[in-house]
Amino acid sequence: FPSKLPDVGSSIFSQMSQLASEQQAINLSQGFPDFGCDPFLLQQLAAFSQQGLNQYAPMAGIVPLRQQIAALIARCYQQRVCPEQQITVTSGATEALFCAFQALVRPGDEVILFDPAYDSYAPAVQLAGGRCVHLALTAPDFKVDWQQVADSINRNTRLIIVNSPHNPSSQVFTAADWQQLETLVCQHGLYCLSDEVYEHMVFDGRPQLSALSFTELAARSLVVSSFGKTFHVTGWKLGYCVAPALLMTEFRKVHQYVTFSSFTPAQFAVAAMLEQHPEQVSGLAAFYQQKRDCFVAALATSRFQLLPAQGTYFQLADYSAISDQPDVEFCRWLTIEHKVAAIPLSVFYRQPPAQRLIRFCFAKNEQTLLQAAEVLCRL
Amino acid sequence: FPSKLPDVGSSIFSQMSQLASEQQAINLSQGFPDFGCDPFLLQQLAAFSQQGLNQYAPMAGIVPLRQQIAALIARCYQQRVCPEQQITVTSGATEALFCAFQALVRPGDEVILFDPAYDSYAPAVQLAGGRCVHLALTAPDFKVDWQQVADSINRNTRLIIVNSPHNPSSQVFTAADWQQLETLVCQHGLYCLSDEVYEHMVFDGRPQLSALSFTELAARSLVVSSFGKTFHVTGWKLGYCVAPALLMTEFRKVHQYVTFSSFTPAQFAVAAMLEQHPEQVSGLAAFYQQKRDCFVAALATSRFQLLPAQGTYFQLADYSAISDQPDVEFCRWLTIEHKVAAIPLSVFYRQPPAQRLIRFCFAKNEQTLLQAAEVLCRL
Ligand SMILES: CSCCC(=O)C(=O)O
Ligand SMILES: CSCCC(=O)C(=O)O
Repeated sequence: FPSKLPDVGSSIFSQMSQLASEQQAINLSQGFPDFGCDPFLLQQLAAFSQQGLNQYAPMAGIVPLRQQIAALIARCYQQRVCPEQQITVTSGATEALFCAFQALVRPGDEVILFDPAYDSYAPAVQLAGGRCVHLALTAPDFKVDWQQVADSINRNTRLIIVNSPHNPSSQVFTAADWQQLETLVCQHGLYCLSDEVYEHMVFDGRPQLSALSFTELAARSLVVSSFGKTFHVTGWKLGYCVAPALLMTEFRKVHQYVTFSSFTPAQFAVAAMLEQHPEQVSGLAAFYQQKRDCFVAALATSRFQLLPAQGTYFQLADYSAISDQPDVEFCRWLTIEHKVAAIPLSVFYRQPPAQRLIRFCFAKNEQTLLQAAEVLCRL
Repeated sequence: FPSKLPDVGSSIFSQMSQLASEQQAINLSQGFPDFGCDPFLLQQLAAFSQQGLNQYAPMAGIVPLRQQIAALIARCYQQRVCPEQQITVTSGATEALFCAFQALVRPGDEVILFDPAYDSYAPAVQLAGGRCVHLALTAPDFKVDWQQVADSINRNTRLIIVNSPHNPSSQVFTAADWQQLETLVCQHGLYCLSDEVYEHMVFDGRPQLSALSFTELAARSLVVSSFGKTFHVTGWKLGYCVAPALLMTEFRKVHQYVTFSSFTPAQFAVAAMLEQHPEQVSGLAAFYQQKRDCFVAALATSRFQLLPAQGTYFQLADYSAISDQPDVEFCRWLTIEHKVAAIPLSVFYRQPPAQRLIRFCFAKNEQTLLQAAEVLCRL
């Protein structure tokens, strides 16, 4: 049976989470919190479903949720987007990414992306018939070389995928990065897919910027975000896409046939949450910065060398002082022998560079982080 | 901006439901119940989410739900499927259909489908690069001409899409239909996409059959079903796909990047429902047969000519004695002037035949059905 995705196996996140659970290891691999969400969100979920709101939501999402998303964008980026025409609710950011590629990328189109890259980008582009052009970013600062990007653009180039705050490097675009991106996208008539699922987790007083912050860029961008990340409910699979009306029309044509709509009671619950608890969003950066600081402090005496984490809930660590195993083996060894699971960085690259980096997820209770750090400090 | 789906607009279901709500009409158009689900299901949803089961489910679905699905298949069709390798939970049947096409259909492949056809098939096949070969079925019995199917098969043919019980015709395949399908699929080395979302709604003592009932056919089939339909919660967007292990591997490669996983608490709630309330499934045919009978009886004095409904929760009606408007106009007129919304049949065809048929959804409270019938009898 000839596969449409011959190179794809089960994802590193599934693999490591399964190994962690088999090994009863502390799971700092797959990115999800080990703490609960705000109880208000769960009360709302129960209340709306018990009120009988269990039938199809409108294809683009319920109106109150789209209005709350527009209000959130206004608060965070001082930009106006039209809930009716520019916002679509999706079954997780993953679905939003997939639909964006299906809507935009035609067979033969080239798509520029930066390695290390989230695992769904390349196969999703491939299924749309596109060809990925991978530009490698390198530790420790994973800066984009915009001249190299410019040099990679040709007449087949259709789309540039960016992701700031960046998983797995935890780096955040500066205003200068966004501006250079804007210039290139506009100059060459490209489109931008901006994966901003960690948008509210930017640390140390850095400005929170989005493709939406830059008007000319926003006019050619599909911006994707995730309530699973923002509200600590990754299993709710609720995200959204924001785009100019013309692009959104194409996005919805695809979304209509990919999932049609998303879990109705959760849409009402998240709308209520956004309206009644805006502090949950505005406080998220401080919340995760504290976790980062706790984890970093607890690892101070370890032999891991920690890279600076500017955002997201991930922390990169160089383990060269501990082992010279390749990172995949090192992560298996760490999980099996020391009961702490992490994600090897090489799997995010098409051509992994010679480096010894792993990614820890610090979206965990302080106790979990301290327990893991205790083990890691003994290595 | 060149569209990947130039012919697609907003779906007839969205359009008619919106018009119905604007017009405050009784909505017998889009297929969804106007009554609540079993309160147990809602209690379970609240309980599992409050227990903190709100993070990513495994990519293929939680194990207890896959086990319950296997048990359901054993009860209904006396067939064994492996929960580990042959079942994947999806974000609605729509996602399952989409992933199946992406996994199976390669650019240039031909896909045979029967008009009237559910609206997502053709665009989803098109996005996978396939070409749809539409074979028209005709009222009143919408029988498949298997010789015509055989004559349509060529070396590019990859897949046959079937849907029994059939939306919108309400017809159900006989054992002979399934056997002829099996012969063709096996003889020509094709695959079968069997959309069985109305599987538990088969009336008048007809046997409930599935592609899974026919061993050789099952070995080349992806079977799709929907808990939204079965448990009266279309907004939960929870469905699944069953396939032989080799096909399922390919299906999951796609699903992993389309949505990755589905709303976690709903998976636990539906697993509990299947385990503790099997009578909800086994009683579904009688439940909907009663609604059909109620609606049909109430329309006895109307000038609509009702076609025999063997399954699903849809009833076709010929309105030639009432109007000679085309069906799209007739449905708009009925909604605006008489406050009853239905779906025109022509939109399910690539080349609509000359007929005057509309589809009513009878998944409604008896009171709703009687109210609608009263209006319809006055026409
Ligand atoms: C969908 S599983 C991946 C979760 C995640 O975003 C990550 O671990 O990077
Ligand atoms: C996803 S909206 C369509 C609902 C349905 O199955 C129908 O009305 O045919």
